[in-house]
Amino acid sequence: MTKTAQMTIQAFLDALAARQSTPGGGGAAALAGAQAAALLSMVANFTLGNKKYAAVEAEMQGYLARSEALRQELLELVDRDAAAFDAVSACYAMPRGTEAEKAARTAALQEALQGAARVPLHTAEQCLAVLQLAEPLGSKGNANVVSDVATAVYLAVGALHSAIVNVNINLKFIRDQAFVEQFAARRDALLAEAAQAEAAAKAACRQTLGVDL
Amino acid sequence: MTKTAQMTIQAFLDALAARQSTPGGGGAAALAGAQAAALLSMVANFTLGNKKYAAVEAEMQGYLARSEALRQELLELVDRDAAAFDAVSACYAMPRGTEAEKAARTAALQEALQGAARVPLHTAEQCLAVLQLAEPLGSKGNANVVSDVATAVYLAVGALHSAIVNVNINLKFIRDQAFVEQFAARRDALLAEAAQAEAAAKAACRQTLGVDL
Repeated sequence: MTKTAQMTIQAFLDALAARQSTPGGGGAAALAGAQAAALLSMVANFTLGNKKYAAVEAEMQGYLARSEALRQELLELVDRDAAAFDAVSACYAMPRGTEAEKAARTAALQEALQGAARVPLHTAEQCLAVLQLAEPLGSKGNANVVSDVATAVYLAVGALHSAIVNVNINLKFIRDQAFVEQFAARRDALLAEAAQAEAAAKAACRQTLGVDL
Repeated sequence: MTKTAQMTIQAFLDALAARQSTPGGGGAAALAGAQAAALLSMVANFTLGNKKYAAVEAEMQGYLARSEALRQELLELVDRDAAAFDAVSACYAMPRGTEAEKAARTAALQEALQGAARVPLHTAEQCLAVLQLAEPLGSKGNANVVSDVATAVYLAVGALHSAIVNVNINLKFIRDQAFVEQFAARRDALLAEAAQAEAAAKAACRQTLGVDL
């Protein structure tokens, strides 16, 4: 189990609120994404074994396996986000007395910043996967709990954009322009896919529930 | 401490994913709102005691007191959401053998549904308060951590809309049309205020950071 998994909710929120950099926004985003994935698992669990949904039993098992894997991955990303940030902090503490030390510090810092951009981008990719999974669960899941798919969609969208904030703030300090441009292109493609997945998932929930949520 | 506060993150996510109605989407929304409030507290904590921000020390203390109160309230709302849902479930289990039993069951159920709509509306109101607090923290907080205000904004918006899903799904089953109309008007006013607060908070972060997040 990860470090975060073993913390109480109170201890995690206290750590988030404290004058310490980790856990921070990237970790909060990953945890919100894990909550969204867990809600999709709940909907799958309320569909499995229900006679009315026997026709989708097999595919629902597949959706549950996927949502549980995403939940686990997003929970692990809370710890990985803190580790990536701590690596950046460690570089700031490196000596810079000589020119050689300054060069070594800058190189290490630039490397660490790339890591600190990669982790929240990965978090955003997992949130996108949650959004993409919400569409089939919204259309085929137990209609009594499909409002929880809609809830998961809103949480995953919030988590995804929170993660992207942490991508952007790290990109700002990265000097390798080729890396920055390539990374920004991946981010923009991801945001476009997320907008599509969000719309498709909401349409599925609306169709199943007969109300706009 | 509340029941949820004492759970480990793993146990809470497991309960969210399980084939049981509570905790559900309303609780996940309240917890995400509490995370957003905690991030605002972190920004205030990184501003207090910093010489560069001495001029805003007193007002920052006020913002911290507010964000901490909102964090506590939102965490308590996770438990209250579950209690409101359990009250509805208890009504569904009431006997309906005689006309008198049916009438008593319907009356109790309608009462419980109003409670189950009130709790997520209250959650949404607290998320709105988080958004409103993000504007002064985004413009006056320690610029080194203002990206975490932007993160908090996205999480609070996701949490607010998730809570509203749970308002809407309960309103659907409430027969008292005067209650439904009055409640829907409150919801719509809240959503309009939230859109304004979100825009103002993002503009404040953008101004402080010099980048669009």
